Amino acid sequence: MKIKILSLFPKMFEGFLHESIVKRAIEKKIAEVELIDIRTYSLEKHHHVDDTPYGGGAGMVLAVDVVHRALTANCSEKSYKILLSPQGTPYHQKKAFELSSKEELVLICGHYEGFDERILKYVDEEISIGDYVLTGGELPAMVLTDSVIRLLEDAIKKESFMDDSFSTGLLEYPQYTRPLIYDGDEVPEVLVNGNHKRIEAFRKKESLRKTYLRRPDLLEKYVLMPEEQKLLDEIKKEEQR
Amino acid sequence: MKIKILSLFPKMFEGFLHESIVKRAIEKKIAEVELIDIRTYSLEKHHHVDDTPYGGGAGMVLAVDVVHRALTANCSEKSYKILLSPQGTPYHQKKAFELSSKEELVLICGHYEGFDERILKYVDEEISIGDYVLTGGELPAMVLTDSVIRLLEDAIKKESFMDDSFSTGLLEYPQYTRPLIYDGDEVPEVLVNGNHKRIEAFRKKESLRKTYLRRPDLLEKYVLMPEEQKLLDEIKKEEQR
Repeated sequence: MKIKILSLFPKMFEGFLHESIVKRAIEKKIAEVELIDIRTYSLEKHHHVDDTPYGGGAGMVLAVDVVHRALTANCSEKSYKILLSPQGTPYHQKKAFELSSKEELVLICGHYEGFDERILKYVDEEISIGDYVLTGGELPAMVLTDSVIRLLEDAIKKESFMDDSFSTGLLEYPQYTRPLIYDGDEVPEVLVNGNHKRIEAFRKKESLRKTYLRRPDLLEKYVLMPEEQKLLDEIKKEEQR
Repeated sequence: MKIKILSLFPKMFEGFLHESIVKRAIEKKIAEVELIDIRTYSLEKHHHVDDTPYGGGAGMVLAVDVVHRALTANCSEKSYKILLSPQGTPYHQKKAFELSSKEELVLICGHYEGFDERILKYVDEEISIGDYVLTGGELPAMVLTDSVIRLLEDAIKKESFMDDSFSTGLLEYPQYTRPLIYDGDEVPEVLVNGNHKRIEAFRKKESLRKTYLRRPDLLEKYVLMPEEQKLLDEIKKEEQR
């Protein structure tokens, strides 16, 4: 997969591209990331890319012509173009899976202060990574890149994301590693001495409990199997005590 | 404000800390960011910080003792300790405002593959930046840092975040800048020739329309003023056509 990132601050990506899973995926040629400086597509002497908003108000607005030129110069038919903005569709693990099958992603990092609405005509989708405001689309572009690259075959072992939070529709069960006892707290006995079946049952129940306690909104959308419904009834009783 | 970031990949923050608003805030001494390598708190010869999960399964689990030592060495009474994880409370602009009044934030970047559940005992809060899975808590820590720093006094002009998406509870209205006509699309006439009152009314309506069309979930939580209810009724009729 090729990922092209159009940004006003391409240097912001330096640490991100040279560490961890993204670096590994680039080295293994599973993914290729290209940074494009939007500023080079400005026709102005001082390479301005933004201007004051029509109608007045605070903040500068990213201009449509500069972004359009940058897109025209760097996109082909196979490019899937995404604008990162707080007004976009909320990003979700399902979308990460969907994007991981694209041949080429083009991510446009806007000013979060504002961009000319007419830019939307030239993109396939507008995505928001959450209900908060950042200074620009750079961190959201890194979030998309990281979440998609880790799903690409071989980037990590497949088993490790089948259990992920949100892949199953529930939060992940609690995990424990050595030491067995730390600061008075012990690893649940079933994980140490239990058989495979008991461990699986424990994890399913604790995954349901965590989701019930912290994210009832996720549970509402989740289709419970009969055994899961039984477990959830038990949890509700336990938590009422 | 002081922000301490505990990470296994401190180099990932390089580009982030040396660009844009965060760099400016650090230079102006509005914020100070300190990176702490969790690995230096491992007592193992090879500086391991994770181990296989009790009960089996894929992936490595971040150990509780290493994180606890790192926290003990770097925190004081005034530290507000946050673990970034996909199982945390969803992050939101309101939380960014709340965190911006803290004296010191300590952000712990976990493996997203898994961390020992007992770590939660030593933190004040567990936060998730969205319903997707990343390779680690580093990007979430940058998201928190960026969203909080931009709210600190003087980091940006105050007016510019009062209109932000989510600050008002609605998505931001569409913005436009020069050129007036681009690729056949013209800036709405009211923004060019309208008076202040008409512009304000246009923006309020378009802000409502965008939220109605894209994020009805936000609109459900929003308390509509009588004039806003009237505007929304108009929008619903217009969009049915």
